[in-house]
Amino acid sequence: MSKQNGQYDNGAYGKRNSKKRYVTYRKAPKKKSLQPPKVKESVRIAFLGGMNEIGKNMTLYDYKESMFIVDCGLAFPDADLPGVDIVIPDFTYVEENADKIRGIVITHGHEDHIGGLAYLLQKVNIPIYATKLTIGLIKGKLEEHGLLGSSKLIELKPRDNITLGDFNIELIHVNHSIPDAVGLAIRCAAGTIIQTGDFKIDTTPVDGDMIDLTRFADFGKKGVLALLSDSTNAERPGYTTSERSVGDSFELLFRKAKNKRIVVATFASNIHRIQQIMDVAKSMDRKVAVIGRSLENLVNVGSELGYLNVPNGLLIDINSIRNYPDDKLLIITTGSQGEPMSALTKMAFGEHRKVSVTPNDYVIISATPIPGNEKMVGNVVNELMKHGVEVIYEKMYDVHVSGHACQEELKLMLGLTNPKYFIPVHGEQKHLQKHALLAEAMGIAKENIYIGTIGDRIELSADGIKPLEGVTSGEVYVDGLGVGDVGNIVLNDRKKLSKDGLVIIVATIDRESGYIVSGPDVVSRGFVYVKENEDLMSAAKALAYEIISDSYDKRYHDWNSLKSLLREDISKLMYEKTKRSPMVLPILMEI
Amino acid sequence: MSKQNGQYDNGAYGKRNSKKRYVTYRKAPKKKSLQPPKVKESVRIAFLGGMNEIGKNMTLYDYKESMFIVDCGLAFPDADLPGVDIVIPDFTYVEENADKIRGIVITHGHEDHIGGLAYLLQKVNIPIYATKLTIGLIKGKLEEHGLLGSSKLIELKPRDNITLGDFNIELIHVNHSIPDAVGLAIRCAAGTIIQTGDFKIDTTPVDGDMIDLTRFADFGKKGVLALLSDSTNAERPGYTTSERSVGDSFELLFRKAKNKRIVVATFASNIHRIQQIMDVAKSMDRKVAVIGRSLENLVNVGSELGYLNVPNGLLIDINSIRNYPDDKLLIITTGSQGEPMSALTKMAFGEHRKVSVTPNDYVIISATPIPGNEKMVGNVVNELMKHGVEVIYEKMYDVHVSGHACQEELKLMLGLTNPKYFIPVHGEQKHLQKHALLAEAMGIAKENIYIGTIGDRIELSADGIKPLEGVTSGEVYVDGLGVGDVGNIVLNDRKKLSKDGLVIIVATIDRESGYIVSGPDVVSRGFVYVKENEDLMSAAKALAYEIISDSYDKRYHDWNSLKSLLREDISKLMYEKTKRSPMVLPILMEI
Repeated sequence: MSKQNGQYDNGAYGKRNSKKRYVTYRKAPKKKSLQPPKVKESVRIAFLGGMNEIGKNMTLYDYKESMFIVDCGLAFPDADLPGVDIVIPDFTYVEENADKIRGIVITHGHEDHIGGLAYLLQKVNIPIYATKLTIGLIKGKLEEHGLLGSSKLIELKPRDNITLGDFNIELIHVNHSIPDAVGLAIRCAAGTIIQTGDFKIDTTPVDGDMIDLTRFADFGKKGVLALLSDSTNAERPGYTTSERSVGDSFELLFRKAKNKRIVVATFASNIHRIQQIMDVAKSMDRKVAVIGRSLENLVNVGSELGYLNVPNGLLIDINSIRNYPDDKLLIITTGSQGEPMSALTKMAFGEHRKVSVTPNDYVIISATPIPGNEKMVGNVVNELMKHGVEVIYEKMYDVHVSGHACQEELKLMLGLTNPKYFIPVHGEQKHLQKHALLAEAMGIAKENIYIGTIGDRIELSADGIKPLEGVTSGEVYVDGLGVGDVGNIVLNDRKKLSKDGLVIIVATIDRESGYIVSGPDVVSRGFVYVKENEDLMSAAKALAYEIISDSYDKRYHDWNSLKSLLREDISKLMYEKTKRSPMVLPILMEI
Repeated sequence: MSKQNGQYDNGAYGKRNSKKRYVTYRKAPKKKSLQPPKVKESVRIAFLGGMNEIGKNMTLYDYKESMFIVDCGLAFPDADLPGVDIVIPDFTYVEENADKIRGIVITHGHEDHIGGLAYLLQKVNIPIYATKLTIGLIKGKLEEHGLLGSSKLIELKPRDNITLGDFNIELIHVNHSIPDAVGLAIRCAAGTIIQTGDFKIDTTPVDGDMIDLTRFADFGKKGVLALLSDSTNAERPGYTTSERSVGDSFELLFRKAKNKRIVVATFASNIHRIQQIMDVAKSMDRKVAVIGRSLENLVNVGSELGYLNVPNGLLIDINSIRNYPDDKLLIITTGSQGEPMSALTKMAFGEHRKVSVTPNDYVIISATPIPGNEKMVGNVVNELMKHGVEVIYEKMYDVHVSGHACQEELKLMLGLTNPKYFIPVHGEQKHLQKHALLAEAMGIAKENIYIGTIGDRIELSADGIKPLEGVTSGEVYVDGLGVGDVGNIVLNDRKKLSKDGLVIIVATIDRESGYIVSGPDVVSRGFVYVKENEDLMSAAKALAYEIISDSYDKRYHDWNSLKSLLREDISKLMYEKTKRSPMVLPILMEI
C-alpha cells in the first residue's frame, strides 16, 4: 500500500525545487525579523506515517544533530488485510537514528496519534511530551503493554516550551473532538514550522476554551517557514459546526424520546460530547449507564483528571439498569460506526448480555459513518428498527459535528500563519490536493506547496523545498502478539483461502520403492460441500494417484516437481468442474 | 442473513389483522364501483426476494388456481460472503407450485430484476413477459446460459394487457434509470394491486416519455386494493432531479476539460446517460470509445433496438484511440463504483492494457457510491489524482441523479393510486419504515400498512391483510458453476481461514502397531512466516508427536478423538504463543 518515493513527479505539485527566489509575503513585515534567517540553514522532515493516508500519524524532524518525533499513531486495517488487528508505522528509520532522537511530542490522545507508541517504545525508549489528558490516555496504553514503569512521560500545558536538542517546541491550544489537543510551533535556526495537529476552530467550545488563534497569528507575524496543516475536511466548504450545537440537539431529542429509554452511541474519546449527554440527562432526571470498555476507560480517566464533570449520583452501573424505569435511564454506548464487536451492534442483533432493546427504546447514533462503515451502520439501524426501536441516525438533527476544520477554517489558519511553504498533511491524496488548491487560492505559489507521501524526506530552507532520498517506511501489521510477522505472502494466502477455500492432497510414499503406501486422500475446507461432491473428490483422488504413480514409473523422484504437477493438474480439474480456484496444497509423506 | 418468519410481530407495523372495518377512502368515489368487490375474494402474495433488503427482487401472486411471478433478480454479495459470485432467490416454493405458475412479468432490465432468470428457467420453464429493451437484455443473459432456444419470451408495450390464468396484468410506463421500465396493475376478482417496480417521476426525461401518471390515477379512481411501491429513496426529501440535468452538467464540464481527454465512468445500464454523453461529445467534435463488456453490450443492444441513437462515425474502437489527439476523444467506461475488476479501477492503478491515464486526462465519475462502495471509489479517485488526473467526483456538479422516487414522488404515487392497503417494497428496513410513515401521513391507517420480509406470504381481501404461513425462501449462493453448494459451513471455513490462516498436522501411523511411521509434519498457510517461526513449528511437531504416542500408549485407537485432541491442544499452543486462532486441521494417514 505504501507508495514508492518519487512517483508523483508528474503530479500537479511537489518535489520541485523552488526557483531560487523569495516569495513575496502577502503581509510581510517591513522591518527584518529574525526569520527568514540570514544564514540559509535547513531543517529536514521525514514523513513516517499519516501522509497521503488517514491514520497512523508520525513525523520526524531533523536539524543538525537533533531529531524528534511528532505523534505515533495506529491505523485500523480495512478488508484488504484479513486478520490484521492494527497497523503501525515502520520504525526502521527511527531505530537507525535512535541516538539522535531527543523525544516525541504527542498532539492529542486519539488512536491515530498515540496508538503506535507502545510498539515504538519497545524499540527506542525516548521521553514522551504531551498535555495532561493525553498523558493520561497514553498511560493506559503503556500499562496494557507493561511499559509504564520504564517510560518517561513529561506533562506540558499549552504555551509551554520545551527544548529538544537544537529544537525548541511550543504547544498551542487547538479545538478538536478530544480535549487538550495542541498544535506545535517548531523552532530551530532554519525557521519556524507550524504543525497544526488535528484541529477545528470552535468559537463556543464546551469547555469554553477557544483555539489559541492569537498564538498562531504571533508566529505568523514573526514569519513562518512552513505550515503542516490537517487536511481531513479539505473537501468540505464552510465552517465546522460548534460541538455545542450537538448539546442543543440532545435537548430537543431527549424531550422527543418522552418516556422511552434513551441510548446514545458515540465515539468513546469525545469527552465534550459525553459531558453534554450527561448534563442534559441530569437536567431531565435520567440516570446514566456507560457500556463499552473504551468508553468506561475514558469516563474514568476524564473524570479523574478533571476533564469530565460527572454530577454526583448520575452514573449507575450497567448491571443495575433493571432497577430503573425506562424514562429514568440513558445509556451511553460504543458502536457508532457499526463495529461488529461493539455494544450497540450486539444490542441490535440481540447478542448483548446486559441490554436487550425493545420498542420502548430511543436510539441516537451520534456520529457520521467513516467512509467504508456506511453499510455496517446501516445494518445496525435496520436491525434496531426490526425490533421496533426508534432510531435517530440521519443528519436531520445535528447529532454529530466533525472535529476537523473545513475550508474556511483551513484558510484562516493559512492566513494567520502566513507560511512560506505549505505542506498539507493528514489526508488522502484527494484531501491533500484540495487543501493545496485552497493554499494556492490564498496566494501561496505552487512551487512552495509540497504534496508528499509516506517515506518521503524533505529539506526546507529559504532556498526552497528539496526532496531528499526517501527513508524506510510503510505499514507494519500487528496480528495477535505478532508485530510484522504477517506480510504479503501470508495475507495473499489468507485472501486466496477466503475466496475459494482449500484442497489438500495427501499421500504417503515409500522412499525406496516410490510406491504409494497410503492415500492419496483429498481433504477440503471452504471449497464445496464434500458430501454433495463425492464424484469430484474421487476424480481428484484418481488423478493424484495417476500423477504420483506416473512419476514413479518415470523414475522422476524430484518431489518439488511432483508437487508442482499435482498442484497444477488438480487445480485445473477443480476449475474445469467448478469454475473455482481453491488453493491446492499437496503434502507428500515419506516412510 | 434471511430472517425468520414472524420476527417482527412486536414491531411498529405488519402482520396484524385489520380491525374488520373499512377504512374511509380519502377521495373515495360515492357511487359503487366494481371494487371493493361484493364477494370477499382474496389474493395472496409471497415475497421471495427484494423485501427488507436491496436486491434480487421476486414477488409471487396467487389467486385461486393461478400464480404468476413479478421479476427475478440477483444481488451482489457483500464482504460477508467471501468467494460468492452472485446471490439469487431460493426457488423451492416456485418449484413446488410449478404447475400453477402461468408466467413471469419483468418490470425492467436491471440485474436486481432479471439476474436470477437464467437460474429460474433451469428449474421451471415459464413464459417471460416484458417490454422490448428488457427482452433484449434478457436474451443476452439466456444466451450466456444456453437457454435462449428453449425460452418463451413475449414482448409487450406499456398499456398492453395480458391474461395469466385468473389474473389480468397491465403494464404502465414509468421513468427509471433504464428505459422501457414499467409498473404493473394486477387485477383479479379480489381487486387491483399496483406494483410500481422501480420508478421515479421525470417530467423532462431524455426520451421525452414521462411516467404514465394518468394511468395510475385511472386505477386509483376505480379503487386500488393495494399498492406495492419502491422504497429505495424513502429517506430522501423532495423530488429526484431529472436525468436531463446531468446532460447540462456534461455540457459545462466537457467545456471545462478544454483540450484534455475526457473519461466518463457511469452505470452500464443507463442508456439515457450514455445518450447524453454521446450527444454532447458529438457537439464538441469528440470521438467516443466504450470500454467494459457490460457497457459494450448495452450500447449494442440499445442501438440495435432503437433506444440509443449513436450518431454516424461517432464511435471508434478502443484500439484506435492512439490515432486521435486527447482533445478529440471521450472514453465511456465502467467502474463508477470503484469495482476492483472494472476498467476505471484498472486505469487508475496502471493495470489497464489499453488505456493509460496521464495528467492530460479529465475523469468524471457520473455516479454516487452505493453504500459500502465509498472507500473503493475514494481509492480510485486518490490513485487517479496521484497520476495528476483531474477528477470530478463530488456532488458539486449534477453528474448523477438517482433513478428512484424521493418522498414527494412517493407521496404523489400514494395520492394518485389511493390504495386501501399499502406495502412498501424494495428497501431495507429503514427505507420500508420511512415509506410507511409517509403513507400514514397521507392518511392510510397503520393497520392497513404491511412491512414484511423475505419468505412472508400474505392474504389480501376487503377484510384486511392476513399473514399466512411463510414459504421456503432465502439466499442461494452462486460460486463458479455451483448453485447452492456453498453454504454456511463452507463460508464459515472461508472466513476462519481468512482471519488467521491454517495449520495442518499430518502424520502416517501404522494401523497394526499404532506407531508413527512418518511425521508428524506441520504445514501452515496464511498463519505466520514459517521461517521466522521455526521454534513454534518445532513445538507444534513435538506436541503432536506426544499426543499421538500417548494415545497409542493408552491403546486409545479412536481416530476421531485423537484428531479432536490434536485440534484442541495445537490450537491452544498456537493461541498462547501468537494470540491467533488459525484453523487446525489434523490429517492422519494409515498404512
